[in-house]
Amino acid sequence: MADGRLVIGTRRYSSWSLRGWLCVQLAGLDVVEEIVPLAQEDTTTRIATLSPSGKVPYLEHWRVQVWDSLAIAEYCAEIEPSLWPSDPVARGFARSVSAEMHSGFQALRQSMPMNLGRENRPLASVVSESVARDIARIDALWTEARDRFGAHGPYLFGATFGNADAMFAPVVSRFLSYGIVLSPKARRYAEAVRAHPLLAEWYRDAATEPKAWIAARYESVD
Amino acid sequence: MADGRLVIGTRRYSSWSLRGWLCVQLAGLDVVEEIVPLAQEDTTTRIATLSPSGKVPYLEHWRVQVWDSLAIAEYCAEIEPSLWPSDPVARGFARSVSAEMHSGFQALRQSMPMNLGRENRPLASVVSESVARDIARIDALWTEARDRFGAHGPYLFGATFGNADAMFAPVVSRFLSYGIVLSPKARRYAEAVRAHPLLAEWYRDAATEPKAWIAARYESVD
Repeated sequence: MADGRLVIGTRRYSSWSLRGWLCVQLAGLDVVEEIVPLAQEDTTTRIATLSPSGKVPYLEHWRVQVWDSLAIAEYCAEIEPSLWPSDPVARGFARSVSAEMHSGFQALRQSMPMNLGRENRPLASVVSESVARDIARIDALWTEARDRFGAHGPYLFGATFGNADAMFAPVVSRFLSYGIVLSPKARRYAEAVRAHPLLAEWYRDAATEPKAWIAARYESVD
Repeated sequence: MADGRLVIGTRRYSSWSLRGWLCVQLAGLDVVEEIVPLAQEDTTTRIATLSPSGKVPYLEHWRVQVWDSLAIAEYCAEIEPSLWPSDPVARGFARSVSAEMHSGFQALRQSMPMNLGRENRPLASVVSESVARDIARIDALWTEARDRFGAHGPYLFGATFGNADAMFAPVVSRFLSYGIVLSPKARRYAEAVRAHPLLAEWYRDAATEPKAWIAARYESVD
């Protein structure tokens, strides 16, 4: 008998689900996973049945109900405090970049939706000015975190893959899918994230999702 | 000698600054306030001088640097834990609605920018369908929080005006400015927020901001 459940969307597309799922795994919560195929005719109805907020990811753990990936990240950090850095300066930075990811980078998110079926495409030849700005900002944030706090390991704050890394994991996936050129430090960080065993697991499970879940809405974006 | 500084934008317009400022006040941090007039020719240059992230609100407290209102809220809650409810179920709900506010309600935010010079306008006769959906969702969240967790006081989680109330305070201001009709419970909650002494202080200081700070970009939206 599990301690709760985690409702997520199609792994191939659902970047927010990936964030929530990573935090839940990192905190070691014992939850049943329930998957809602996105962009299908009955998606809204099915999510409404499984998640009282009507949103994914949605976590129920014991009596606690949490929706939204950043709230899930904070909940998980209450259980596994190492999800945020222990040093207050690093923790302030980690929370700031996570919040910036959570509310920002609209241009990037809209024009480069996550699509795990698109790994290793040719390098993007053109990106719009607003997307280029988003990419440059993320590259700068990763580089600063690595320079200031990352000496003892490959992740943003060193040896521990934590909440901030989880928040950026879908961006790593996008950069790899769309062939975005990064600075050397940011590229090495992206490779370290992609190589994390939990990312490998998510990608593997995404690859075995039913073909019927492939949705034109996401596939039509180039 | 203060312990740090808080960089905010024009009080009349800057809804995110209001959120960050409220959390900082509620946590009792001793910081100097630095105000950047928004939507002026030199706004970007001035923010860059005062805030290394190029964003407001920006908090520096001792050696910790935090930008983004939700990260500031979490930082403040480390110092003053009562900013989140102590009960885990209530706290999960508080963090979820705060995160939903932080990343969502785009239609509402775009078509009803905060403008403290517009209090008590006539009731809105028409709102678009997407704005109406945002309003209904917020009304439902407030009502649910009040019903489930708010018995011991006028705020979302009872007697303490906390981080979740701070996150919604600018929405309260918008609903009052734009004459939005709410359910009775949501209306009473909005009135309680507006009557909080810190809101009164912010409004009073907003009213004495230089006339030169009034910006066409915000005033032209109806």
